[in-house]
Order: sequence, then structure tokens, then C-alpha cells
Amino acid sequence: MIIPARIIEKKRDKKELTSEEIRDFVQGLSTGEVTDYQATAWLMAVYLNGMSFKETVALTEAMLRSGEQYSLKHIPGVKVDKHSTGGVGDKVSLILAPLAAACGLKVPMMSGRGLGHSGGTLDKLESISGFNVKLSKSEFESVLERVGCAMIGQTDAIAPADKKLYALRDVTGTVECIPLIVASILSKKLAEGCEGLVLDVKVGNGAFMKNKPQAKILARTLVLVGRQMGLKCRALISSMDQPLGYAVGNSLEMIESIEILKSENLEKHYLGEDLFSCDLKELTLQLCAQMLEIGKLVPNLNAGRKLASEKLADGSAYRKFLELVEAQGGSRAQVENPLKLPLAPQVVQWKVKRKGYLSKIHTDTIGQLLIELGGGRRRASDSVDPSVGFLLHKKLGARLIPGDPLVTVYASPQTDLKEMEKAFQSALEVSASRKPVPKLLVDAVTK
Amino acid sequence: MIIPARIIEKKRDKKELTSEEIRDFVQGLSTGEVTDYQATAWLMAVYLNGMSFKETVALTEAMLRSGEQYSLKHIPGVKVDKHSTGGVGDKVSLILAPLAAACGLKVPMMSGRGLGHSGGTLDKLESISGFNVKLSKSEFESVLERVGCAMIGQTDAIAPADKKLYALRDVTGTVECIPLIVASILSKKLAEGCEGLVLDVKVGNGAFMKNKPQAKILARTLVLVGRQMGLKCRALISSMDQPLGYAVGNSLEMIESIEILKSENLEKHYLGEDLFSCDLKELTLQLCAQMLEIGKLVPNLNAGRKLASEKLADGSAYRKFLELVEAQGGSRAQVENPLKLPLAPQVVQWKVKRKGYLSKIHTDTIGQLLIELGGGRRRASDSVDPSVGFLLHKKLGARLIPGDPLVTVYASPQTDLKEMEKAFQSALEVSASRKPVPKLLVDAVTK
Repeated sequence: MIIPARIIEKKRDKKELTSEEIRDFVQGLSTGEVTDYQATAWLMAVYLNGMSFKETVALTEAMLRSGEQYSLKHIPGVKVDKHSTGGVGDKVSLILAPLAAACGLKVPMMSGRGLGHSGGTLDKLESISGFNVKLSKSEFESVLERVGCAMIGQTDAIAPADKKLYALRDVTGTVECIPLIVASILSKKLAEGCEGLVLDVKVGNGAFMKNKPQAKILARTLVLVGRQMGLKCRALISSMDQPLGYAVGNSLEMIESIEILKSENLEKHYLGEDLFSCDLKELTLQLCAQMLEIGKLVPNLNAGRKLASEKLADGSAYRKFLELVEAQGGSRAQVENPLKLPLAPQVVQWKVKRKGYLSKIHTDTIGQLLIELGGGRRRASDSVDPSVGFLLHKKLGARLIPGDPLVTVYASPQTDLKEMEKAFQSALEVSASRKPVPKLLVDAVTK
Repeated sequence: MIIPARIIEKKRDKKELTSEEIRDFVQGLSTGEVTDYQATAWLMAVYLNGMSFKETVALTEAMLRSGEQYSLKHIPGVKVDKHSTGGVGDKVSLILAPLAAACGLKVPMMSGRGLGHSGGTLDKLESISGFNVKLSKSEFESVLERVGCAMIGQTDAIAPADKKLYALRDVTGTVECIPLIVASILSKKLAEGCEGLVLDVKVGNGAFMKNKPQAKILARTLVLVGRQMGLKCRALISSMDQPLGYAVGNSLEMIESIEILKSENLEKHYLGEDLFSCDLKELTLQLCAQMLEIGKLVPNLNAGRKLASEKLADGSAYRKFLELVEAQGGSRAQVENPLKLPLAPQVVQWKVKRKGYLSKIHTDTIGQLLIELGGGRRRASDSVDPSVGFLLHKKLGARLIPGDPLVTVYASPQTDLKEMEKAFQSALEVSASRKPVPKLLVDAVTK
């Protein structure tokens, strides 16, 4: 018989829990033997006292076993997925899933929704009308087999213990905790049945991990726990000190992604002549190269990058994306003409006010302002308006001349943009001389 | 508007909460703005990161204000109460309340029930048939005014936030936390309307506080926070390295208390010729002297002790107890002939097995064994059998000769006493030579 208070006390007193205790505690969450208020006391003890590697593996395993586990063994091909720890403007998955599939991998991708200042892939996909992220298991497998990638939400049957714990963590200040983050991410990824996983751990003022040492620990823990659980696992650590790419907001991010997918054939940019998201494309190619190497489709990273670049350049990835959208019920017309995606009617360009160089972007504030526009979620139950958002015209290091376009905001007609502009301008810092721009790729855990 | 997660995070990050934040959080508990699972995450953060003096005062005040506050100003006399942090065999209140009243104080005593290995005064009082611990406010005041003391349970209207938090602490490993203990004790004592309070902080293997430095911190915090809230406050720190007195179990403890109350006139001991509880009587007299000095009925402690000894010796305290019992509906006959109190039919004397000296008693184990007999509570909702218990024949330092009486157990007929005796014997340690016995009075905080 499990006595939850004893397990809480043990963690409170900095003692290592056995795998059985962790399993019983997580099981108790679903049977009701462990109440929500016991779970949160335990979560806070874990937050403050940490977990050993062994405990983290046991927690991952317990959360995995709390629900359904897909086996994709009957589908031919190497199943490799990517997971990002989340940030602002991170639309990599939209490009990467069809690109990796075009390169020959199978990409069974289960994603999340946006919460707080972070966006979510499902919301971005749903900016395309008709796109269905709630496929049944057999529909998911069928799209994956036919198209080479499938993009869905986590079903209720997958790792329900994680769902419960995450909802509790979200309102009890226990989100930013490495063992809990690791178990949450990996339990879901293990449940979806992939063999390989490339992690994109974000670091910077728009990420959960604010500094590099913390991000490195998270990346290493993810990789080591993942491998312990039998997953081929690697991590890149990439900068989230500014939004990735130019677009922040669901339709805008979809448009930007389609732009990249079509890039080599592009006659004009949908969103503005001078905008092309080098960082977004670069990160996507690097992640794809890692996935291809993990899946042994290429002998090394260079070959992976070359293959990925070719499949992007020759339109294969774009065509794969069209296939995917059609297979999941989305509008082909919107992909072919992305300006048909929902875009808010109040479109205003804010200008540069201070002369100098863009030296800092408070990225999490940009994410918060998207919530205020209606494009993000405070609570998981909030609905999201895909049509609103920001299109940056300047990124870190840019020279600023007063009067130049700074950002285009897409807002609903009733939004009062005056306060919003003030807050947005305050989220940017300007310096007299050009400061070094944080490197996109900060570090990697591949060995 | 209160955002509970922000308050939790602040405490999690070791920052000092403002009095307003603490007040809002505690208020939020009753309005539902703060959920149980947020409360417990916060409690664990408080347990692990502590609270400043200012925070502890604010928490005490917030819990006090969560409910009804009695004012006893209209009742003549000085209102002084005693509170013990709890232990095994601690029946001091049963003797002290009538004794202090016999000395001229007014003693408005609100007590608790036993939980875990600790006993509770209310359970002990209810071993007397008819004794009503659930008086209304006006009945309570009337008994207090007429008799000089009244003994009741905390009503639901007193410090409801404390009730809620205590129930949560009990199942989340957050009981043994000094600021939480202090706020819990003092909010209730302040609500009952007393002017002075003498605290009996227990230390030892049968107490919450296992070591003297911890007990000293608790005592000092109680006294300082109490004074900050306008209460005249002192604390004794007394040993709980063995049960107090000889009896453990509700009826048995009542009998022992009546024995002390009648002691000077006693022809024979109710429970055995050789048993007379010197430690119990001594602690009661010392606590009474402190109460009398706080209440300014005597010029100093010596005079207080003298007065208390006289009122015990001349039968005034006993008569006051009879008055109290009658005023609260209890059976006078049972007090006059305590062997009429409920006593279990299976009475067995266990013998000394090992030769030597009694060097250690695992006091909390004795408390746990009482629960197994049915005389204590695992959960607050458990009912208690007053008739069962242990009567020790040996205390620490006693010489042990195999075959001598060690303990008399009172158990229900269906109890299998074989395993129980084994566990009881294991709770005692025997040494070849006599070891020093822990002093009854360990320390005091009176200045």
C-alpha cells in the first residue's frame, strides 16, 4: 500500500526515491490514491531538492506507462522526431517535418499548444482551415505511412499522468524544473513510438532556460535519460534571445514557414521584400541533418545538411507539406496562396524611434504581447486568434534609423494599439554602437 | 487581484512575502481563489525555505482573522491559558486548568484531539461520560465565568484557515515546520480571547521537536510572535523522552490526573500502590506558577508555586475539577470513583525480561502502539476507544529485574497481544549500568 505522505517526506528530506516509490506515486495519481494537493507538495519538493538521474528515468518511465504507447514497428522506415523546448516565433516543426520526410525519414510528430509566452505547433497548423490535428491512431499511422510525416496533438490516452502533473505545475510555480521537464518531454516522445529524437533546447530571455549552463544540463539530461530509455537521442542548444525568424503569431508564422519551404522558387516575399529568415532556415537545416544522421540515412552531418538543402531547394519539402496538409484535411489553396490565411484587419506599421543598433529584445515580453493581442494563451482553456501577431522588420544587430519600419502589427479592429506600441518599444533596447549578436547555435550534445 | 502562482514562486525563490501577500493568500484559501493544490505547493516551499519573523506574524494574523475572535473582556479576572505542543501521556491540562482556576485565574481552554502518536485533551475529557466539549460561545463564557475554567474544542468558526491548512499539512509532510506550527498554535489561542499564554514546548523522541536547539527556536518564535500580537507569553521546554506520568490512553490518563488532583488525601492509588507521577505533578506546578506570575496574581514564581501547591494539597483544585465536570455535563460519579471510567476488559501485565536499567524509551512508538490498541487516531476521522492503553510500571532510570511488572496493558478482548508485547518490549532499551535520566525541565523562555 502506498502512503503518499511518506514519499513526499522522503523527497522533502533530500533522500533518493526508489523506482518503485516513483512508480507507485505516479500510478496513485490516476487511481486517486495520491491527491492533487499531495502531488503539488511533492512537485515543490522535487523543484527545490532535485532528482537523481535514476529518479528521473523512473519518473519518465512511470509517466510513459501511465498511458497508451504507440508501436510504429509495422510502418517501414526509420521513425525520427524533433522536439523543441519552446520559445517565441519557433515554427521550425512546420518546415522540418515535411523536409525530413522528403529526405526519407518517417516523422511521427506529436506537438503541443501554445501556453504563456511560448507558441505551439498545433495552433500554427490550425491557422490552415480544416487542418485536423486530432487524428485517430489508425489515421495517424496511415498518414505517416503514406506521406512520411504526420502532425497531431497528444491524445488523452498518451501519458495522462504527465497531463495531470503539467496542469498542476503550471499553477504552482513548478514548471522550470529540469527532471520534471525531462520526464514530461520524453514520456510523450517515447509514447509516440519514434526510434530517434533530436532535441532543440532553447536558451535565452524567451526560453524556459535563461542561461547556458542550465540549458546544457537540460540538454544533457534529456539526451542521457532518452538513451537510457532506448531512444537514439541528441540535442542542439539554440538561442532564444530574439524571436526565431520574423513572424510571431500563428498565421504569420505559417506564412513565414511556407516562404521558406518555397524559398528557392520564390518571386516575392509574401510578407515584405526585405525579410528572409536566415536563422529559421539555418536551424531547420541543422536539425534535419542531425535527424538524418541519427536515422542513418546519411554517413555524416555534412551529407545530411547537403541532402536537406537539396530537398528544400528542389521543392520536395514543399510538395511534402502540401501532401501533409491535404492528408490531414487542410486547405491546399491557403498553402498555395498563404495570404489567404486568416490575417487581422487592423494592420499598422510601427516605426523606429531611437537611432542606434538593436542590442536586446525582451523576447518573453513579445510573447506576452501576442497573448494580449489574442494570439496566445494565459490558460490552457483560452482560445487563440490565429490572425493576429507581429512581423518584425529588425532583428538583433540591425542598424536603426528613426522612421524606418520596426514592426508590423496585425490586430483585431477593437484592439487599442497605443499602449501596445509603448510596451513593444520598451521590449527593445537600443545601443549607440553595434553589440555582438548571440550565436544561433550555442552548443550541442551529440556524443 | 491575487495571482497564487506568483506568491508560490516568490517563496520558492526564497524571497520575503509581504504581509499583504500572505493575507491575500490565506484569504484566497477560503474564497477558493487559492486551490488546495496551490496551498500545498506553497506549504512545501515554506517548509523548505522558511519564513521570516515578519512573515510568521503576518501568517498568524491572517489565520486569526480568517474566523471568529472571542472577546472575554466582559468576564472579570485575568484570562490565562496553557498550550502544549503535544506528546505521549501529556495530561497536564486536565489538572492544570482547574488548579489555575482554583488559584484565581480564568482559564479559557480550547484544546485539540489526538492525532498520530500524540494524545489530545478533548479525547481525555470525553472518557468521562457526558462531558460536553462542544459548548456554544455563550455556554463557554458562562462556564468560564461561573467555574473559572472551561474546556472545549476549537469550533469551526475559529481560524478556519488554520483548520484547512492543518489538514493539508498533515498529508503532505509539512507538519514539522516552525513558522507553520507557530501560526497554527497562536492564531487559535489569540482567537479564544486570552491575555496570557504559557507554552509547554516538548522536546525528545515523543515530540515533534526531536532536539533541543529546534525546540528552543520553536519556543522563542512562539513567545516573540505571541508578544508581537499582544499576548503575554512564556514558554517552558520540557522533556518528552518518555511518556509523562505513568498512564497512556484516555481513561487511564484521566484516572492518573484525578489521582494527582486528590493526591494529598489519597489512601490508595487507583492504578497501583507504587505508582505516583512525580514528573506530571512537577510540570503542572511549574506551568501553574508561570501562569500565575503572568496573570500578576503572585509577585514571583516561588509564590506562584507555593500557591499552586496549596490549592492542590487542600483539595481546591479537585473541587474545581468536579465543578467543571458537572458544569459541562460530565459524570460526577466517575470522577469520585475513577475506576468507573471505561476500562478495557483484557488486562494483562507484561514482565521485565532483561536485567539492567531502563535507559531509553522510544516514546513515539508507545504512541503508535496506543493507536494499534484503538486508543489513538491515524486519521482525524478515526474514532477513539477511551478504555484501552498502557500503564507503565517503570520509567527511565528504573532498575529492571526480570519477572518484575513492566507495564499493564488494557485492551479489547479481540486484540492479539503477542505481537504487541514484542513491539512494546522493542520500544524499551536496557543498559547494564544506570544512565543519566533526561531532565524534566530542559529550558525556558521567560524574558
